[in-house]
Amino acid sequence: MKQTETGTLKIIPLGGLESIGMNITAFDYGESIIVVDCGLAFPEDDMPGVDLLIPDITYLKNNISRVKGFVITHGHEDHIGALPYVLKEIKAPVYATRLTMGLIEHKLEEAEILTSVRRKTVSFGQIITLGDFRVEFIKTNHSIQDAAALAITCPAGTVVHTGDFKVDYTPVFGDAIDLQRLAEIGRKGVLALMCDSTNAERPGFTMSERTLQRTFDNLFAENEHSRILVATFASNVDRVQQVINSAYRYGRKVVVEGRSMVNFITIASELGYLDVPDNTLIDINLMKNYPPEKMVVVTTGSQGEAMAALSRMANDTHRKIRIEHNDVIIFSSNPIPGNEKAVSKVINDLSAKGAKVIFQDVHVSGHARQEEIKLIYSLIRPKYAVPVHGEPRHLAAQANIAAQLGYDRDHIFLLSSGDVLELGADSAGVTGRVPAGAVMVDGLGVGDVGNVVIRDRQHLAEEGIIIVVLTLEKASYEVLAGPEIISRGFVYVKESVDLLEEAAGVAREALYEALSRKTIDWNGIKSLIREDLGSFVLKKTGRRPMILPIIMEA
Amino acid sequence: MKQTETGTLKIIPLGGLESIGMNITAFDYGESIIVVDCGLAFPEDDMPGVDLLIPDITYLKNNISRVKGFVITHGHEDHIGALPYVLKEIKAPVYATRLTMGLIEHKLEEAEILTSVRRKTVSFGQIITLGDFRVEFIKTNHSIQDAAALAITCPAGTVVHTGDFKVDYTPVFGDAIDLQRLAEIGRKGVLALMCDSTNAERPGFTMSERTLQRTFDNLFAENEHSRILVATFASNVDRVQQVINSAYRYGRKVVVEGRSMVNFITIASELGYLDVPDNTLIDINLMKNYPPEKMVVVTTGSQGEAMAALSRMANDTHRKIRIEHNDVIIFSSNPIPGNEKAVSKVINDLSAKGAKVIFQDVHVSGHARQEEIKLIYSLIRPKYAVPVHGEPRHLAAQANIAAQLGYDRDHIFLLSSGDVLELGADSAGVTGRVPAGAVMVDGLGVGDVGNVVIRDRQHLAEEGIIIVVLTLEKASYEVLAGPEIISRGFVYVKESVDLLEEAAGVAREALYEALSRKTIDWNGIKSLIREDLGSFVLKKTGRRPMILPIIMEA
Repeated sequence: MKQTETGTLKIIPLGGLESIGMNITAFDYGESIIVVDCGLAFPEDDMPGVDLLIPDITYLKNNISRVKGFVITHGHEDHIGALPYVLKEIKAPVYATRLTMGLIEHKLEEAEILTSVRRKTVSFGQIITLGDFRVEFIKTNHSIQDAAALAITCPAGTVVHTGDFKVDYTPVFGDAIDLQRLAEIGRKGVLALMCDSTNAERPGFTMSERTLQRTFDNLFAENEHSRILVATFASNVDRVQQVINSAYRYGRKVVVEGRSMVNFITIASELGYLDVPDNTLIDINLMKNYPPEKMVVVTTGSQGEAMAALSRMANDTHRKIRIEHNDVIIFSSNPIPGNEKAVSKVINDLSAKGAKVIFQDVHVSGHARQEEIKLIYSLIRPKYAVPVHGEPRHLAAQANIAAQLGYDRDHIFLLSSGDVLELGADSAGVTGRVPAGAVMVDGLGVGDVGNVVIRDRQHLAEEGIIIVVLTLEKASYEVLAGPEIISRGFVYVKESVDLLEEAAGVAREALYEALSRKTIDWNGIKSLIREDLGSFVLKKTGRRPMILPIIMEA
Repeated sequence: MKQTETGTLKIIPLGGLESIGMNITAFDYGESIIVVDCGLAFPEDDMPGVDLLIPDITYLKNNISRVKGFVITHGHEDHIGALPYVLKEIKAPVYATRLTMGLIEHKLEEAEILTSVRRKTVSFGQIITLGDFRVEFIKTNHSIQDAAALAITCPAGTVVHTGDFKVDYTPVFGDAIDLQRLAEIGRKGVLALMCDSTNAERPGFTMSERTLQRTFDNLFAENEHSRILVATFASNVDRVQQVINSAYRYGRKVVVEGRSMVNFITIASELGYLDVPDNTLIDINLMKNYPPEKMVVVTTGSQGEAMAALSRMANDTHRKIRIEHNDVIIFSSNPIPGNEKAVSKVINDLSAKGAKVIFQDVHVSGHARQEEIKLIYSLIRPKYAVPVHGEPRHLAAQANIAAQLGYDRDHIFLLSSGDVLELGADSAGVTGRVPAGAVMVDGLGVGDVGNVVIRDRQHLAEEGIIIVVLTLEKASYEVLAGPEIISRGFVYVKESVDLLEEAAGVAREALYEALSRKTIDWNGIKSLIREDLGSFVLKKTGRRPMILPIIMEA
């Protein structure tokens, strides 16, 4: 039987298929596992206080001796952000292209684990061997430099994983996506294609990053009498390069502001990914030596992040830069879904100061649209289609594209995180499940905030808390103190004295009723207080605060 | 002096200029005040637990004897939603067109104040006299029927307030906007134009509502083998009319689902604003008698509202309708800013069920774009421009349009809520401020949740609470019980026993240190516990929960 000869490949996404973010996929064949990407996600609105989400790697921990390495497609947070956490538990080497590795090293250094992690920088076209796997890094284009697709080969066949990508025939830095190599690999036969779905709902072709050079030139020409501020993604070094180009052309100095922007520009410059003419970048403290119309500020905050530099400028809490009436602020970005209100708030703050805000048509996406996705399918011609990188709507949109290209629905796999997709020479299907999901990181705690805590936080946020505290004599059940009522987040206490006094009366009655029963147990007392006080408050206020009776024994 | 002869008109927006929503503006001349609109707003993300926002009407209450009436432009929540609250405090009559009045009456009935409110239904072209004011209602078009612009005349001059509007030459129901009358009023001289800014950032002209008829017909033709569900705004009766038209043409029955959708359709039908062919609308319980491809469901939930019918269908909690693989769901709506993630969640849930979701190009806006705004300015030719209805960015965009039309910047007023704009024959300017802002409604409470409560709720949500409770003997300060530690929303207690025991130890040490001091005061004990425990928890977890020491005396 052919299938036992070659065995089957298991593809196990541990994240990234329910939402944009937290990309991580295990490839499991024989005695070897490799992991593609290891990203974080940002918490949803219903996870108050949570800083970030990292993937559940139970499956990797249970198979730790077989994990041969992490192969990373590019340096965005949703592909590398969980490495500092995961590498503490899984000691396997990391493989990535040069800029990507530079960004990973910066992260590991911050987490103080740089020296303990084996790392290998890979060139495009290079093939690395990891147990039963060979992995080739193939040049692609994306909104960050040095992005790679991966051709992952094991005895069961070859899988091409695009990573996040677009087709840019005229990139600002480096080569265009290596379509020839993708075609060559496709020609030899590809078992499955795992292709970026982010823009699969959008028709047409994403524009080249380079098209923005003319846009910036025009904006600089039109606003020659104003200071210009450009907000964009810190990781989009090519975007910053084009702003610098326009600044140089129009005789302006450039200030880079915002911690992550400075980080990225520093790393990219050191590694040679950014070309800055002499005397163009200046220190923020030297701005005062130049007239406003000779300055450009490149800043973080394009997503309305409350603590980012642009937001602080907009609400007058930035220590060095104040927005003036004549300023022109260019948002070279689109709001990431969920950030619309935050971005709008910053635009409102800037507008209210009389600044001119430009936010239309100054951005191109880093993700392939429908025609690019069709191009990749047509070059690779995989046996199976496995849409990745997207929410279910985006995966479904790519599935529709594959169907249009002639794929049968049973050759298209819409996976969920934790699904085990098993691919053999003659068979393909989801054959199992492994643990998968998001682990919440809050402050220093990893995983100590779970659903119970989140539910309590939501309850506290929506309705506040009423604490009923009382002290009983241990043996006699005599009430030594209380019941007292303390509330937080419920009503403004000073204006609700009567309500709270009445509530204390209700608690007292409930207490004495419970104490007058034949059998007295503390849970019974607590329940009765909770019920009676809850009904009273609901009737009086229409609200259901958390009611927390505390009984102390003396 | 001419100015003293005619006096000055004060225009005082009490809401609606910081965000979309809560529109209410007082016009104050001599012994008369009239109020244009009286809307609510929905809370921002940083107001947990708040149900809705209504305007601060201190100014009206302080001048209650002069308030002659409320004139309402149309029946959307952001123009009528605060009436049930405000009319309890300000007993003045309400004037509105027929459908608008129908919707207001429904609201007042729910609030059980219908019979105590004087109401007068006004026709287009009709002029009502309210003290020193004459108000003419002028036909406009909007995403709800019977929308009116207002020409408000007092001895100081005429102000035209557009309300929310678009220019629809071919409306689905009723007449097009009365451009002739607007021109006629403009010809006689208009002091100020208060014009809708919602779409002032968008170039061009908003498409006619009627253009969607062909869109629906095409979608019905293309999906003839599927059940069709259409989600749209309950108040957009013209939209529902067009869905019914297509359903009738293609031989489908229509079910209307969702409480507010049923409300609107009922009121609109009763008043003659909706034309339903016989035997087209059926009860939801009769759906089972028809094959899916002969059904259309018109439903609420186009904004991803968690409790709306479509959301419940999408997450399998709707009692009557389950989404099936072959269903086609049409979102005839755009997400209102802030709702993008919620809408996307519903689309994801529907996509994950294998349903086809259509959300592009099935909606037209109800608000005027730039060319329409220019048209209105050119018909009215006001002396002063006062952009309204929008966030600061939208008001600024309309100001730019006015500037393009030749208005000097000192003839364009970008107001904030609470500003008193005083207009005379020869003068115009902001001459004062009155109280303005949002009053929070939470359950039955109006205004009892303020900034302190909101800050506590945010703190509780982000970090949780640690309660330290202890009982002291009143006279001797002997510790009778505790300190005990109880937390909610902080850590998962079962997995953090050690941490909480250590924390109790820290609290105990702080307590005994405070008790060992020369002067013992309870606030001192509380502060020390709060400080020491706060530092301990921050160091251990990186978090800052609310720490609430409670000392009971026995």
